[in-house]
Amino acid sequence: MRIALDAMGGDHAPKEIVQGAIEAINKYSFIEKIFIVGHKDKINPYLENGQNKLEIIHASENITMDDIPTVSYRTKKDASISIAAKMVKDKEADALISAGSTGAQMVASLFGIGRIKAVDRPAIATVLPTLEGYKLLLDIGANTNCKVKNLKQFAMMGSIYAEKILEIKNPKIALINNGTEKTKGNELVQQTYIELENMPGINFTGNIEGRDILLGSADVMVCDGFVGNIVLKLIEGMAKAVTSLAKEEIDKSIRAKIGAGLLLPVVKELKSKLDYSEYGGAPLLGIDGISIICHGSSKAKAICNSINIAYNCHKSDLIKIMTNNLKMGDV
Amino acid sequence: MRIALDAMGGDHAPKEIVQGAIEAINKYSFIEKIFIVGHKDKINPYLENGQNKLEIIHASENITMDDIPTVSYRTKKDASISIAAKMVKDKEADALISAGSTGAQMVASLFGIGRIKAVDRPAIATVLPTLEGYKLLLDIGANTNCKVKNLKQFAMMGSIYAEKILEIKNPKIALINNGTEKTKGNELVQQTYIELENMPGINFTGNIEGRDILLGSADVMVCDGFVGNIVLKLIEGMAKAVTSLAKEEIDKSIRAKIGAGLLLPVVKELKSKLDYSEYGGAPLLGIDGISIICHGSSKAKAICNSINIAYNCHKSDLIKIMTNNLKMGDV
Repeated sequence: MRIALDAMGGDHAPKEIVQGAIEAINKYSFIEKIFIVGHKDKINPYLENGQNKLEIIHASENITMDDIPTVSYRTKKDASISIAAKMVKDKEADALISAGSTGAQMVASLFGIGRIKAVDRPAIATVLPTLEGYKLLLDIGANTNCKVKNLKQFAMMGSIYAEKILEIKNPKIALINNGTEKTKGNELVQQTYIELENMPGINFTGNIEGRDILLGSADVMVCDGFVGNIVLKLIEGMAKAVTSLAKEEIDKSIRAKIGAGLLLPVVKELKSKLDYSEYGGAPLLGIDGISIICHGSSKAKAICNSINIAYNCHKSDLIKIMTNNLKMGDV
Repeated sequence: MRIALDAMGGDHAPKEIVQGAIEAINKYSFIEKIFIVGHKDKINPYLENGQNKLEIIHASENITMDDIPTVSYRTKKDASISIAAKMVKDKEADALISAGSTGAQMVASLFGIGRIKAVDRPAIATVLPTLEGYKLLLDIGANTNCKVKNLKQFAMMGSIYAEKILEIKNPKIALINNGTEKTKGNELVQQTYIELENMPGINFTGNIEGRDILLGSADVMVCDGFVGNIVLKLIEGMAKAVTSLAKEEIDKSIRAKIGAGLLLPVVKELKSKLDYSEYGGAPLLGIDGISIICHGSSKAKAICNSINIAYNCHKSDLIKIMTNNLKMGDV
């Protein structure tokens, strides 16, 4: 498999990005080539000799977090994300991976690679650690204003992804709502509920409330990108807030300090379990090619993991299955 | 002050409700009378002799969680929540408190007491524990479909409540959004942002992301009831999920078990800090009278606390200030 990896995006670019690529090559035999797309002078210091599966594709520009994605995509013709997307479009690479501006990757994927015809709006799906293992949440920010047909397509795409990539049989699909009853919710969600009930090809199980998201009772949780983004970031922030509050309390007593010391391995294990960024990347579903969005804070391990996710999408022929199912389903 | 307390609502009604009233009478000298509204045969066993500040107001019916609020309000004429609301309307009581069906209390407050004229839709505001102390979140479920003017009114009402009841000077008002930039968000929030920027009488500080909600950077967080409900319940569920995951890990090692034992006081302290239900009640803002919604799981302590909140609203003349400010502000 050939990966187009944007080396210029993310808080730890390009160092950790390149190191992630090297880690992946050492770990995974499926890699034929990783194209490191970015400024060669910035990438070169991190390359080791004898890495013949790594190839630098020079890009003189990159789209930063401060750029307006749609504008920069047009004006920065030589941006690393755009070049990487074009390589996927031209079948020179099998997947695009970046830890840079999510907006830039969305625009580059949408216009550079294109979308699956039956999909009106691609969605970003993320894997969430829950009490019942990894579950899928989408959309987490690609679409802040959604229509019923968008949520229906998210449900279908999420269902396919959960089945093929997360290997969950007959995944349970739920709508995030302010109550479990059918009559609950805003207009969008109420209407979507009725349509999902009657949609063939998915196992729709109803509504899920905020308090059940992390319990893992649903395999695929569907919402618009506005709600999904708030949910995801709240989970992120909550972990930080609890840690900070706990530290404050622990510092008050020696007894608690000893207790905390003894608990350290558990806390580390928990942190790693709850840290969805370690999982390594959120697929942009609905694009006519594999596009994996990595967290901006991604380090080498996350990049390496995201390459594995891209491979799972590739080997299971995810895009083809999605294209066929969405066409057939006439969602 | 005179309180109309619905004794029939909540998981622990009527026992804990009555006990909460007794606790409040013993604790607070401001109480002139607490009217315990509900079925006298069910309340009587929990009364003690010599409670002359307690008076049972008999109600033969009550609206349960399974009832449809709007329907039951019309058909169950003798429901405890309706009688309690009417007492506020008729100036026989200064505040309504219930731990029963939120929908029933909303309907009873709206139709039984009435709303402040300048307010189109009342909102439920809850106090959230954050790293910077108690902050306000509204709406948490009264309105799943909102317009710009609703969010503007929520902002104004929240600002007044934060200043008068939470005693935060010049409270910082923020919109919950999927990004901090002005251009972020769905149509509703984008439009509201522009209007709040130009609204006199409030200290609007921009958008707040999910990850910042518990950090406490804003004093009043405004959103529609659909989002607010998901946010609040997610915080509830997260606490449970983390506890459950931690327990699982701790049970694996003796070392961790000892650590957890030593940490128990800290965990209890944290739990109490994070448990917003202990705070004792969420005001229904926009009603032309004091209406405090208690968590369904409320025990005596929470009921007692909610009576204190009702008193704070009463002594600060909250309803009058809100009525005047909203009229002047022409929100």
